Amino acid sequence: MAEKINAADVTVGVVGLGLMGSSIIVSLLLAGHGVVAIAPIAGEKEVAPHRIAQQLKLCESDGLLSLPKEAYLALLTVSDNYALLDHCDLILECVVEKIEVKNAVYQKIVSASCPDTIIASNTSAIPISLLQQMVTFPERFIGIHWAEPAFATRFMEIVCGEQTSQATADRTRALALSWGKEPTLLKKDIRGFITNRLMYAVYREAFSLVEEHVATMADVDKSFRYDEGSWMTLMGLFRRMDFMGLKDYVAIFETLFPLLSNSGKVPDVMEQLVANRAGGTQDLKGLYRYTTQDARRWEEAFARFTRDIYELASQYPAPLKSTVKEI
Amino acid sequence: MAEKINAADVTVGVVGLGLMGSSIIVSLLLAGHGVVAIAPIAGEKEVAPHRIAQQLKLCESDGLLSLPKEAYLALLTVSDNYALLDHCDLILECVVEKIEVKNAVYQKIVSASCPDTIIASNTSAIPISLLQQMVTFPERFIGIHWAEPAFATRFMEIVCGEQTSQATADRTRALALSWGKEPTLLKKDIRGFITNRLMYAVYREAFSLVEEHVATMADVDKSFRYDEGSWMTLMGLFRRMDFMGLKDYVAIFETLFPLLSNSGKVPDVMEQLVANRAGGTQDLKGLYRYTTQDARRWEEAFARFTRDIYELASQYPAPLKSTVKEI
Repeated sequence: MAEKINAADVTVGVVGLGLMGSSIIVSLLLAGHGVVAIAPIAGEKEVAPHRIAQQLKLCESDGLLSLPKEAYLALLTVSDNYALLDHCDLILECVVEKIEVKNAVYQKIVSASCPDTIIASNTSAIPISLLQQMVTFPERFIGIHWAEPAFATRFMEIVCGEQTSQATADRTRALALSWGKEPTLLKKDIRGFITNRLMYAVYREAFSLVEEHVATMADVDKSFRYDEGSWMTLMGLFRRMDFMGLKDYVAIFETLFPLLSNSGKVPDVMEQLVANRAGGTQDLKGLYRYTTQDARRWEEAFARFTRDIYELASQYPAPLKSTVKEI
Repeated sequence: MAEKINAADVTVGVVGLGLMGSSIIVSLLLAGHGVVAIAPIAGEKEVAPHRIAQQLKLCESDGLLSLPKEAYLALLTVSDNYALLDHCDLILECVVEKIEVKNAVYQKIVSASCPDTIIASNTSAIPISLLQQMVTFPERFIGIHWAEPAFATRFMEIVCGEQTSQATADRTRALALSWGKEPTLLKKDIRGFITNRLMYAVYREAFSLVEEHVATMADVDKSFRYDEGSWMTLMGLFRRMDFMGLKDYVAIFETLFPLLSNSGKVPDVMEQLVANRAGGTQDLKGLYRYTTQDARRWEEAFARFTRDIYELASQYPAPLKSTVKEI
């Protein structure tokens, strides 16, 4: 059984107020925590409150708020003074994926925080076992990997480093559940964690199919959207196999595994795009081409779809929360 | 531009009336085609009409019918007499994945069919280039790979063998579009086609994570459901990269591709399950364990989710049908 959390008793610090940091803050405010938001970059302190207020407004129009917007904002302190982190129970670091920047931030957090604070990084690129060596209490350091937008997704990976204590993992998992997440626990600090490894395995094969002129990118996208997309959110990978009956898979594994791409190389098309400074939808130049209007439509569609699929998944509580045992 | 199809002018034959064949027939009846359904196995002729009527009833309660159920059933002939295929424009083979069985069926189809009939196989396991050698007009032989339930999914892979003509591919694609599908075209007849290769790349990595004790099966399922599941149906793989901004991917490809599983081996747990004759949800023994009630709940949830996700995807016509160009 996970520990019961009283949100009002738990104050959370967030360091780094970019897009991700802001949406994490909104998620924490919705959960009822007091939040101390620290801006490590000049200008962030001024920009972040506006962004957070806007996201809260979005939550309001989506019916996610049970109190007036102002009640949530009253729980928030935005500052560039790390000393305000002194009473935080958990401090989340969401700064840029650069080791030296993270290290500098950790030294300031360690100086300010009290002896039982958990420090967590949102990194998806740097090993937790490496980062935790930078703090004086590595057993209380852990990875918490959120998905964007943090207030509207159930995904959360909790990543233990080599020195992370069981108590820290348990406490973090209890908090994640209290935030309405469906946390997964990584017992080993493996590069790419779970979700990125799974996705990059697909990307490797997808690029290989395009490079071999088997199919166009548009057709690969279509295939994934309409096949995998039609059951993924309901059942995931292994339960899908049970559902389809297991016996055919062995023969297909035997035939296909040896034929799949084992490439360790970055695809040429990606090298070219990055050399051309293509930034995707944002700058209208990517694997596809976009007009300004296309880009805006994708932004809007993503925001709407995120809410719709969250809502849809919520309508399947019984099987999704099934407690049947794994072998 | 795809050719315009008048469904009433096109009669379709279906050989093989199992689960898949039956749901394909329902899809064709909904599209307005006359359907000649041939049962190659004793007993199928008697069972299939009942199953088809039941699926039509399901379509009726889901509001998929524009005419009374009886109007669709009036378009259907069920028989074991291959000679009735003589006026079919397209004949779909959906029998068991055994080359010798398919070959016997093709000989009967070829004897009965007229000179411009297209013959299509629903195989996902046997190369089209191999199967088309069994007919006297390989240029009119093609793969059409459906997803279950055929009347409620948009997925369709059209697979050209080495000898398939462009005219056959064009005509098949036009038919697929007229059925409300989102067909992808495989220019090469590659093992596993697109969707299976992508999925088996994920399965290879997923089993490796479980075997290395990084995460449990339940956590892998959760991770895929709540991360990939939250955007997959909207954007697919490549457009997702554009949407997230491309630049971070190159560094991650460089780090992760060489670390991913390159195993060519069937996972031990699968060997064991199949040795124990585990059949998944159907016989309550699989990667997870099930009670009879669990199994029924998964059946119901899948039927409902299939409709819900189909409906949800329909609400995103603009970006999903975007005609922006690929590089």
